[in-house]
Amino acid sequence: MAEPLRFISFEGPEGSGKSTQAARLAARLRARGVSTVLTHEPGGTELGREVRRWLLHQGAAMSPEAEFLLYSADRAEHVRTVLEPALAAGSFVICDRFVDSSYAYQGYGRGLDLAWLRSVSDGILRGVRPSLTFLLDLPPERGLARLAGRDRLEGESLTFHRRVREGYRSLAQSEPERFVVLDAELPEDELEARIAREVISRWPSLSGF
Amino acid sequence: MAEPLRFISFEGPEGSGKSTQAARLAARLRARGVSTVLTHEPGGTELGREVRRWLLHQGAAMSPEAEFLLYSADRAEHVRTVLEPALAAGSFVICDRFVDSSYAYQGYGRGLDLAWLRSVSDGILRGVRPSLTFLLDLPPERGLARLAGRDRLEGESLTFHRRVREGYRSLAQSEPERFVVLDAELPEDELEARIAREVISRWPSLSGF
Repeated sequence: MAEPLRFISFEGPEGSGKSTQAARLAARLRARGVSTVLTHEPGGTELGREVRRWLLHQGAAMSPEAEFLLYSADRAEHVRTVLEPALAAGSFVICDRFVDSSYAYQGYGRGLDLAWLRSVSDGILRGVRPSLTFLLDLPPERGLARLAGRDRLEGESLTFHRRVREGYRSLAQSEPERFVVLDAELPEDELEARIAREVISRWPSLSGF
Repeated sequence: MAEPLRFISFEGPEGSGKSTQAARLAARLRARGVSTVLTHEPGGTELGREVRRWLLHQGAAMSPEAEFLLYSADRAEHVRTVLEPALAAGSFVICDRFVDSSYAYQGYGRGLDLAWLRSVSDGILRGVRPSLTFLLDLPPERGLARLAGRDRLEGESLTFHRRVREGYRSLAQSEPERFVVLDAELPEDELEARIAREVISRWPSLSGF
């Protein structure tokens, strides 16, 4: 049986610790000499940094369609210039947020039609899809508390974040073979160990890492 | 019979004189007291100006998918913030380039799948489509000559511009009731008069304008 595509994504709300876990997994793989690219969306390309700056600047006033298309433009660049070359070279790619973020935030959160989001995304991804996605699940109230002092979420209502969470959980239920849902409030070391076990079960050649 | 949507677009290559003719038509309508919004893509919104700056800055290196999605993000904003409000208020909207530019340049010119471009665009336009489109047709060699001294096209090959021209002509053939194809090398006054006649034939209430 062919090995699954070496592409792993991390999803979940801000404050869920997904960036920490993505970095820990990358460090583990690299410590075993496994070539690994750790990247993130938006912002993994020069265009992504421009898009991120723009959305922070006036995201609130922008239509959800335009917001989604800007993220998608960044994603198209990211796939072409970072993900495809890394995967072709045999590296593991670990991505902090990917297309599921668009489905959860712009689809479930802002109410854009999921079929349209998927149709736009299909033309970008061309088969570059994570074979394993960790969803760090967290009630919005807890994520907001963990972010106290940061400003990213203050413009969005709790209702919005509840829709995003339910969206993530629906996505995970619809693809149980790809998604692993984890309680983001577990201790970091325990999360790291569980994530490592899931990775080894999909790529047995990594056993012992 | 319901009046057609008061939305007129101008298409054609750089150097075809479409901006001049769009402005002349707007001036004619306004001189008769007809409320008219003259706008253009990209750049009809603040986002559009940013997108234009990004594309000029690093457009050559960008994937055609990302380029198309940036234009589409601008278009989504433009439809929501300029076109829909103007049409709802009963104004004529005259737009210098619209979605047909994406089909011609990113589809026929750069080879992106037209079905994908249409599917992305359908989610943006939501029925806001020109009922009349003037295509100012010009052989690429002549357009380039007319642009001597400007720098926009120098990075693109003549072959690219030939594909764009053939694309525009195919689009026009597939929707003969919407497109009016004009020889861009006719004298400006003659073009203006022909355009006015076409507009009056679609909106007889403007007769005499």
